[in-house]
Amino acid sequence: MKNIKILIVGTGAIGSYYGGRLSQAGAEVSALCRSDYNIVKEKGITIESIYGNFIFKPHEVINKISDYSEIPDFIIVSTKVLPQINIVDIINEKVGENTSIVLIQNGIDIEKNIAKSFPNNELISGLAFICVSRTEPGKVIHQDYGKLSIGTYPQGISKKTKLLQELFEKANVKCLADENIVNSRWQKLVWNAPFNPISVIGGKLNTAEILRENTSFNLVKNVMKEIVLLASNCNITLPSDIINQNLENTLKMTPYKTSMLLDYENKRPLEVEAILGNALKIAGDLNLRVPYIESLHALLLLLDKKNTENH
Amino acid sequence: MKNIKILIVGTGAIGSYYGGRLSQAGAEVSALCRSDYNIVKEKGITIESIYGNFIFKPHEVINKISDYSEIPDFIIVSTKVLPQINIVDIINEKVGENTSIVLIQNGIDIEKNIAKSFPNNELISGLAFICVSRTEPGKVIHQDYGKLSIGTYPQGISKKTKLLQELFEKANVKCLADENIVNSRWQKLVWNAPFNPISVIGGKLNTAEILRENTSFNLVKNVMKEIVLLASNCNITLPSDIINQNLENTLKMTPYKTSMLLDYENKRPLEVEAILGNALKIAGDLNLRVPYIESLHALLLLLDKKNTENH
Repeated sequence: MKNIKILIVGTGAIGSYYGGRLSQAGAEVSALCRSDYNIVKEKGITIESIYGNFIFKPHEVINKISDYSEIPDFIIVSTKVLPQINIVDIINEKVGENTSIVLIQNGIDIEKNIAKSFPNNELISGLAFICVSRTEPGKVIHQDYGKLSIGTYPQGISKKTKLLQELFEKANVKCLADENIVNSRWQKLVWNAPFNPISVIGGKLNTAEILRENTSFNLVKNVMKEIVLLASNCNITLPSDIINQNLENTLKMTPYKTSMLLDYENKRPLEVEAILGNALKIAGDLNLRVPYIESLHALLLLLDKKNTENH
Repeated sequence: MKNIKILIVGTGAIGSYYGGRLSQAGAEVSALCRSDYNIVKEKGITIESIYGNFIFKPHEVINKISDYSEIPDFIIVSTKVLPQINIVDIINEKVGENTSIVLIQNGIDIEKNIAKSFPNNELISGLAFICVSRTEPGKVIHQDYGKLSIGTYPQGISKKTKLLQELFEKANVKCLADENIVNSRWQKLVWNAPFNPISVIGGKLNTAEILRENTSFNLVKNVMKEIVLLASNCNITLPSDIINQNLENTLKMTPYKTSMLLDYENKRPLEVEAILGNALKIAGDLNLRVPYIESLHALLLLLDKKNTENH
């Protein structure tokens, strides 16, 4: 496996962590950096992990894609999903005939545009279940979890998906090859769509504070119902008790601060469209009313705008 | 009119201003104070008004209702409408056979409980269109407007309503005797229900900032539609173009900070139930779905709770 070439686009917490792991597994992992280019070039990325600390020294560190000397086997995109980040433009130049594009990102329907722009390339879609954060340039702390689910888009498990899975497993990353990754995205959205936005809008709350009031408990439930409704209209089958399961599990777990709230507190832009806007677009296309999602979406946009205005 | 006896309950900005005006008109106006009892007793309430400054010296200044030496002709209630303020308990002792109870307060359906508790007393319901604030104990600044609408509850204009109107007019307060004050409350709610809550939830925004985004413009409109729907199911007739009129007027006016936002910024409890909760209860009774109001209500409760927690 020595000569598997991987380019990581987006060396935030997710990209740095998983890129580092793939590098440990023996792949030739390069990194496209932005603000921390100098420090990563010089010192690499320090990963403080619950499984032991290590330094990820990318094979090539670049700050513009044209500087990359290869055509990679995999481009792993792990940026935030934001309207101002045009992934197609960023990666275009280095997408070769045999390059698989891998998205390890949040939200639903984030693959469509990439698939349309690179119709002849394999697209692998992935979900990370991890608690990891970038605490300063060139430094990432891995606090908990770490599991990945990856699958070929729109479905199945291709040879290269299997190869990537094995590479992750070799680096001690629990990685599930998921026959139906789109389904899994929807399943994750059932939780994300209410909790991420309400944690911000409701006044910087953790999960327990959100569920403590009857009215907001019901709001969470109503948003979940709308996601389930949309999913079923997209022929996505979700477990029949998914709402109650999500609520019960969340009530049981240690009060949890969502990643969207962390972003908000750090004045970083929020993934409003990936989490809510795309669901809203689907509802529009299907002529379905989803007023709870619509309300959260409008309010979250206001807060996001105000929060990042002077940044 | 010398011996008209009026007791003001709630010497916040509204009660102080209108009480002061009635006193200027020659009525015997007393005041039930709480935190500013000592200063009002000693110095009265200083009113800095756009129509000229004056000092309101109440006839009697009391800090518990039993100290009031009279049974008044009018008890004017001008407190916030909050679950923790039990008006019936507060005024009960001094509601005589001929006492009219006057509510100058926000929201809808705030009369029901008072009417039920004092079935033999006349109830006068009123709306204030005024920009006035209490800047320190014993001091109130009247910045703009000042019009009142008062009407007998549930409808009509009684003799004493007329008397009170004339008294206000004598003191240069523009006062409309309103045949259908319940209707007017709903009409005011069409504006208040979206703008007050969204100004707080959306991140401390003025009216222009709320209407600038398409998504929140639509949220405002959808909340207005739900209020109009509820009204029509309560046999309340509102002007057919009320929504567009409200939106157009708000777009035209100088960007405006709602009173609810001012309360929020000053860590004062918000009138969540009077503005949204009562509408929600009516929807429940009528089996109507109002998901936009429901969303705002749940989120506003979260913010209100967090905001006043340490107060």
